[in-house]
Amino acid sequence: NSACTQEPPRKKIHLDDASKETSSSPSKEEAPENNGSCGSSGSANKFNGSTKEQEAKENEQATAAAADFSQLEIVRVLSNTDANCSVAVEAKHKTEDGRVLLHLQKSPFNVELMSEVVSGGTRLRQLLHNDVYSKHTAALPVHLNEVSVTIIHPATDKHFERYERELCSMVEETSELYAIHSKPFIDSGSSFSKQWIYNILEGSSEADRVIFRDDDPLTGFVLVPDLKWTGLQLTDLYCQAIVVRRDVSTIRDLNGDHLPLLRNIRDLGTKAIEEKYGVERHRLRVYVHYLPSYYHFHVHFAALTYDAPGTWCGRAHLLSDVISNLEQSHVCYSRATLSFVLKDNHPHPLALKQQRSRDASSPSPVV
Amino acid sequence: NSACTQEPPRKKIHLDDASKETSSSPSKEEAPENNGSCGSSGSANKFNGSTKEQEAKENEQATAAAADFSQLEIVRVLSNTDANCSVAVEAKHKTEDGRVLLHLQKSPFNVELMSEVVSGGTRLRQLLHNDVYSKHTAALPVHLNEVSVTIIHPATDKHFERYERELCSMVEETSELYAIHSKPFIDSGSSFSKQWIYNILEGSSEADRVIFRDDDPLTGFVLVPDLKWTGLQLTDLYCQAIVVRRDVSTIRDLNGDHLPLLRNIRDLGTKAIEEKYGVERHRLRVYVHYLPSYYHFHVHFAALTYDAPGTWCGRAHLLSDVISNLEQSHVCYSRATLSFVLKDNHPHPLALKQQRSRDASSPSPVV
Repeated sequence: NSACTQEPPRKKIHLDDASKETSSSPSKEEAPENNGSCGSSGSANKFNGSTKEQEAKENEQATAAAADFSQLEIVRVLSNTDANCSVAVEAKHKTEDGRVLLHLQKSPFNVELMSEVVSGGTRLRQLLHNDVYSKHTAALPVHLNEVSVTIIHPATDKHFERYERELCSMVEETSELYAIHSKPFIDSGSSFSKQWIYNILEGSSEADRVIFRDDDPLTGFVLVPDLKWTGLQLTDLYCQAIVVRRDVSTIRDLNGDHLPLLRNIRDLGTKAIEEKYGVERHRLRVYVHYLPSYYHFHVHFAALTYDAPGTWCGRAHLLSDVISNLEQSHVCYSRATLSFVLKDNHPHPLALKQQRSRDASSPSPVV
Repeated sequence: NSACTQEPPRKKIHLDDASKETSSSPSKEEAPENNGSCGSSGSANKFNGSTKEQEAKENEQATAAAADFSQLEIVRVLSNTDANCSVAVEAKHKTEDGRVLLHLQKSPFNVELMSEVVSGGTRLRQLLHNDVYSKHTAALPVHLNEVSVTIIHPATDKHFERYERELCSMVEETSELYAIHSKPFIDSGSSFSKQWIYNILEGSSEADRVIFRDDDPLTGFVLVPDLKWTGLQLTDLYCQAIVVRRDVSTIRDLNGDHLPLLRNIRDLGTKAIEEKYGVERHRLRVYVHYLPSYYHFHVHFAALTYDAPGTWCGRAHLLSDVISNLEQSHVCYSRATLSFVLKDNHPHPLALKQQRSRDASSPSPVV
C-alpha cells in the first residue's frame, strides 16, 4: 500500500490509451481485441485475417518460451515490494529475442486449506523460543504455497516503466497553480479518452454489471462494481459511482450547487449496496480521489475490511468530509490548497520531473 | 494496512501501561523477565531458582509439542489478511493441554535469490494467455518459499484478542455528537495517562532522541523519532512533533489562532528533518490523526516511501489540508462533521458496541 506503488497499472491505462481500456488487468488492458483466455484467443483472432492469426501464434510461442524458467536469465530487479510479497524483474531468454518482464506475487493463504497447512506435511525449524512465544520458519508443501506469475513477452519500455519503482513527491496545489497548470492539463484531455465511461453511462458497455442507475441529468449516477473486485467475496467489496453529468472533472469543480448530487450518491449508493450485498453503510469507506485516475467525477465505495488502492491521505477524500466542507463553504474546493502525492515521472505539469524540465527550458535571464 | 488492524500494539502500550513498554513485539511486551532467545532462556532462568527453571522447561516442551503440526487440529481462523499474505488461527494439540495460537506469514522475496527462483526448479502452470500477456501459477522449490510462523502456547484470551480481527465502523461525528459524547470522553482522561508525553516535553525522558525543540509556549513543539522507526534506514523514516501547549487535544480544538502553531510545525519540523536526515519536505507525508491514539496534539512525519500506520482517509488528515481549511474558515473544525473509522469494541462512546450498549441500557419509555 505504499504511496509510490499505488495503482500504477490503472493510472497508466488511462495515460496510454484509455479508449480501448476498461480493465486493470494488464492482459485486458492492452490487448482489447483479444479478450479471450488462453484457449480461445487463437480462434477469436481468426476473424481478423491471417496476419492477426500469425501474430497470435508468434505471441503464444514467445510466451511458451518465457514460461520455461530454465531458459531465462535475470537482467535486473525492477521493484521489490516486501509488504505484499511481490517482485518484478527483467529477464532475457537464452535463445529467443525480446525482453521478458516477470511479476511474481505470493498467494494469500486459502483458509479452506488451513488444516492441510497445519498438518504433518509442514516442517518447522525453530528460530527462537522465549516463554510461551516461539518463532519458526516453515517449509510448506509446494501445492499449498503457490506463487502467481505474470509474464509479458516481448515487453516494451512502457511495460517496464509501469513495474519500475518511481519516487513520489507531495505537491501542494494552490488555487493559482491549479488555474495556471493543472486545469489546462485536465481540459486538454490529451492524456486519455473518456469513451469507456460514456459507454457505461449510455449502457452500451457493462450494462449487465450495473448495480444501480439514476438517470437524473443533475444528480444521477451509475453504480458498478470496480473491475478490481472479483465479486467473489464481500470482504473486498469495491464499487464506483460514475456521475451522469459531464461537467465535473474533479473535486476542484465542486461547489454548493453540487451538494444534492453528492448527498444522492452517498444515500442511494450506500442503500443500493446494502440491498444488493447486505453490506451496511457504516461498513463502507466512501471516498473520492484527488488526483483521480480519470477526469470524470466518480466516487469509490470500498468495504472497510478491504485495503483498497489509494485510500491514503494525499489522494483520498471521504465523501462525507467533502460534503461537510461544502456545507460550511460553497466555494471551498475552488479556493483551497490541495496537496497530493504524485510519481515524479507523472505527466501532470506539477509532477517533479515536469516542473524541473519546465524550469530548465525557460529562457535564461539576460545579463 | 487494513483499517481494522492498524496499530493495535501501539495503542495497547499506552492504554495498558506506558511506563514499561517500548516495543511492539509480543515476546518483549509480555515476557519482560525472560528476554533471551531459545538457547539462552534456560540458563537465564537458573538464577531465579528451580520454579522458574521448571516453568521454562514446561514452556519449552509445550512449544515443541505445538511445533509438531502433525499433532495439531485447527479450531478456528482468527484473521486472514490477504494484503500481506498472513493468517492467524487457533489450534489445539491432540494430547497436550492449552490453546495454541499460530500466526503464519509468507516471506517477501529475497532479491539475492531471484536467479534461483527463475530457474528450472520452478514449474509454471498457465492460467491464461492474451497477446503478449500471460498469467501462471508457479510451484517454487520449498527452500525459496518459506513461511514465517509464530507460535504462542499456552495462549490466553488476551493473545487471541490481539490477533483476532475486530470489525470496524465508519462513524460520522457531527459537532453535536462531539459535544455530547466525544468531548466528555476525551476530557475525562480516564483512558490513559499522558505522563510519558510530559516527560518528553520536560526533557526527563527520551532527551537524547530529540531531533528538534522549540520551547515557545504557544507555537513550540518537540520533534522525536517515532518508537516504530528503527532509525536504520530513511525509507521508513517516521517522526512525530508533540506540541508544548497542553490545551489542544485534537483537530476539534483547532481554530484560526492556531495557524502560527501549525505553520511552525510544518516549516521547522520539515526543515529539521531535512537538516538531520537529508529527506526533503516534498518526500514527506505530514499528517494528523483523528481520532488520535492519545489526546495531546501531535503531528506525524513519515517518508512517502513508508507505508506508515493509519495514513488512510477516515483517520489521517494532511497538515497542509488542515492549514488550508483553517485559513478559509477559522472555526471549520469545531463545526465540521468529521468521519472516522473505529473498531467496534473501541472504548470511544461512538464506537458501535458502546452505542448499542448505551441504547440497550437507556430506560424503556413508559407506556
